[in-house]
Amino acid sequence: MASTIFIQPSFTSKSLNKSLNTHFVPSFKLPGSVSFNPRTVSQLSVRAGLIEPDGGKLVDLHVAEPERGLKKREAALLPRVKLSRIDLQWVHVLSEGWASPLTGFMRESEFLQTLHFNSLRLGDGSFVNMSVPIVLAIDDSQKERIAESKRVTLVDLDDNPVAILNNIEIYKHPKEERIARTWGTTAPGLPYVEETITKAGNWLIGGDLEVIEPIKYHDGLDRFRLSPVELRQEFEKRNADAVFAFQLRNPVHNGHALLMTDTRRRLLEMGYKNPILLLHPLGGYTKADDVPLSWRMKQHEKVLEDGVLDPETTVVSIFPSPMHYAGPTEVQWHAKARINAGANFYIVGRDPAGMGHPNEKRDLYDADHGKKVLSMAPGLERLNILPFRVAAYDKTQFKMAFFDPSRAQDFLFISGTKMRALAKNKENPPDGFMCPGGWKVLVKYYDSLTPSDNGRIHEAVPA
Amino acid sequence: MASTIFIQPSFTSKSLNKSLNTHFVPSFKLPGSVSFNPRTVSQLSVRAGLIEPDGGKLVDLHVAEPERGLKKREAALLPRVKLSRIDLQWVHVLSEGWASPLTGFMRESEFLQTLHFNSLRLGDGSFVNMSVPIVLAIDDSQKERIAESKRVTLVDLDDNPVAILNNIEIYKHPKEERIARTWGTTAPGLPYVEETITKAGNWLIGGDLEVIEPIKYHDGLDRFRLSPVELRQEFEKRNADAVFAFQLRNPVHNGHALLMTDTRRRLLEMGYKNPILLLHPLGGYTKADDVPLSWRMKQHEKVLEDGVLDPETTVVSIFPSPMHYAGPTEVQWHAKARINAGANFYIVGRDPAGMGHPNEKRDLYDADHGKKVLSMAPGLERLNILPFRVAAYDKTQFKMAFFDPSRAQDFLFISGTKMRALAKNKENPPDGFMCPGGWKVLVKYYDSLTPSDNGRIHEAVPA
Repeated sequence: MASTIFIQPSFTSKSLNKSLNTHFVPSFKLPGSVSFNPRTVSQLSVRAGLIEPDGGKLVDLHVAEPERGLKKREAALLPRVKLSRIDLQWVHVLSEGWASPLTGFMRESEFLQTLHFNSLRLGDGSFVNMSVPIVLAIDDSQKERIAESKRVTLVDLDDNPVAILNNIEIYKHPKEERIARTWGTTAPGLPYVEETITKAGNWLIGGDLEVIEPIKYHDGLDRFRLSPVELRQEFEKRNADAVFAFQLRNPVHNGHALLMTDTRRRLLEMGYKNPILLLHPLGGYTKADDVPLSWRMKQHEKVLEDGVLDPETTVVSIFPSPMHYAGPTEVQWHAKARINAGANFYIVGRDPAGMGHPNEKRDLYDADHGKKVLSMAPGLERLNILPFRVAAYDKTQFKMAFFDPSRAQDFLFISGTKMRALAKNKENPPDGFMCPGGWKVLVKYYDSLTPSDNGRIHEAVPA
Repeated sequence: MASTIFIQPSFTSKSLNKSLNTHFVPSFKLPGSVSFNPRTVSQLSVRAGLIEPDGGKLVDLHVAEPERGLKKREAALLPRVKLSRIDLQWVHVLSEGWASPLTGFMRESEFLQTLHFNSLRLGDGSFVNMSVPIVLAIDDSQKERIAESKRVTLVDLDDNPVAILNNIEIYKHPKEERIARTWGTTAPGLPYVEETITKAGNWLIGGDLEVIEPIKYHDGLDRFRLSPVELRQEFEKRNADAVFAFQLRNPVHNGHALLMTDTRRRLLEMGYKNPILLLHPLGGYTKADDVPLSWRMKQHEKVLEDGVLDPETTVVSIFPSPMHYAGPTEVQWHAKARINAGANFYIVGRDPAGMGHPNEKRDLYDADHGKKVLSMAPGLERLNILPFRVAAYDKTQFKMAFFDPSRAQDFLFISGTKMRALAKNKENPPDGFMCPGGWKVLVKYYDSLTPSDNGRIHEAVPA
């Protein structure tokens, strides 16, 4: 688990990639924080700058507004498949083109390529990365109800129609093989597996999505859920000539902040004029002991308010994907999705998307495999991978700093366990570990948990 | 298990690939059945014809004859690693370039790419297929003995030096992950896993091989063990303009023969003048209930003697690889190695390299996944995949024929169980199922097994 080790980028020798063309697809979604003008998009689409999306064109699976009524009427006549909360998150991911060039839940050929090759071959012979199966499971009775229909309607937990899945293909759900090839283990206790696979149906249904309306969560955070189109627009608006993405699912401490500001400094040194940070917390399913999204967003806001990160050069947005905790396999997905959002630099840490082995006393993945696999992954050649080295609390400077082995005794490694213990006991970490505003949010979160909440305190783990 | 279904090629739409250059590397091995003249090789190397090996150049890891004495003296001074029987088979495979462009046991970067991507990226950005890890495990005490040495000597079970491994890299052996990602299951009872991984050391050692002398088995079959160089020479000698490979680990019956002769007919129809069949039984480790290599070779010889296959257009040779029984993952290795041997067509059946699930009542792999995965595999784009459809015993014609569903009642499916029962009871199968000479060999094999042999009769499974 990446709980105690912090980070500095060591730039790879890969040449910088400034693609000349960026394709935009107008979106019909107009979330709060970004003013959106389709004319601006078409102007932007001819500007040089951002990295090209996978497959050359950002996928948008939303039904155009004038056709929504018609589609709803069509949807009412089709066999229905009920989506779980996590299925709906995947519909959201697919609808906005994070998984471009995928146009819906995977058919078997895409599923098999994902499992075996972590990549998809396109018609022109080129490869795009695709490492986690984005699939929809159905059970025998649902399959029977669908019968010979070529289309189904996907409905949410309240039976509201969400999308139509077209030209469907139903194929066997090889659960054991899916789990083994995605996680590299079949040990019981993998959170995503228990939540979505073990009890799921024995069939998978793939097809092309038409999403009737943009997915909203009405949790006060929709304004942070910028689509890849909107993020690209934002980066263009800010005249970014480099975008570096930082994926996280945990509170930001000053070790992270050091890394991010140092990355910007280095990009400036490399000749970029205006590198923009995409601070991109994962917003979909996370396991019970991670800090919930709403608390993390409060904490991230404080970090910007307290000036730890510069709002001028930082875009905070929510990445709608659910979390697999599949280590080297999943980090590829995390990176690939950010290409589609316009990022050409990706910061990768120790044991990305890792966790403890569910039933052995060790981490599930080798801590270095994530960045190694990422740097070799097919379809990610265009992305500049920024691995980072250890940072820790420097007792002589009262702040987080890059670890210097020549004076190891000056450094304090504050483990996740230690940090949680402090926050739970309403104690303070050493000055300079985390901005005071951010720390208060964490203390408040743990305070809000009572021992009667599932019988135990949930534990938060830093990135 | 692919026990009951036989086969016919249905040609894919892939365009034929006749590469203009074939690179040969002179070999110092001169096995019985092929006269070998280095001058001929260099003449051949400028001829158009056979498919280019992976990486453009066939790897040959043998030490040149004049340097062998020197290498032996070097080897005597280095730390030693003892090879198992299967390790030695892999040294053989690597030494002759079946795994080109691999130059030795995998280092971690190759191991990780194999596990995650089933392919290796070369320096020029192109990919070659590589789906099964070719790795050498060592334990803690061996690692300690090697200490800081950059080279080790690999010795056989009798402590004879076999090879030097240079520029070694020692890295962790993540057994569970290796098994899960290679087999898609971690269920106990996988034959190769039990034989080579479960009890193996916790470290892997990679490096560049120098093989002191060609590997020989002295089992009377070495003359059938043609290297890729020798096979290419043989195909050139026969003026092959297409080579179609048939991998097998079981006795040949007339369903197989029908398939192979029909493939040649179709290749002729496609305009090839002289397609040559590479009948290529696997000669390395197989599980206990497969028919042993020596008996299979006797059976294959009878099939040629009895005229079921035409010796003029057939090359019978032994593929030295051990068997993983890893289905869709392994079939890629089986195909890739045959590219290196000069084959540009590969025949793939139902459930290739598959077997029953070790502890569930089902086949381990979907019977169609093998050919699907093979047809999409990175690095195999140049290979023409020939999937086949069902053949069975036609009771109206007293021979094996392609199954015609419009007169299903005329066909008899002779299962592996049925075949084994017949051979064990010294009964005959229907006329035309297998040539009489071949059948006699099978009967003799089962007769040679006594119930006291491990307490039970081993069972043979047809391809």
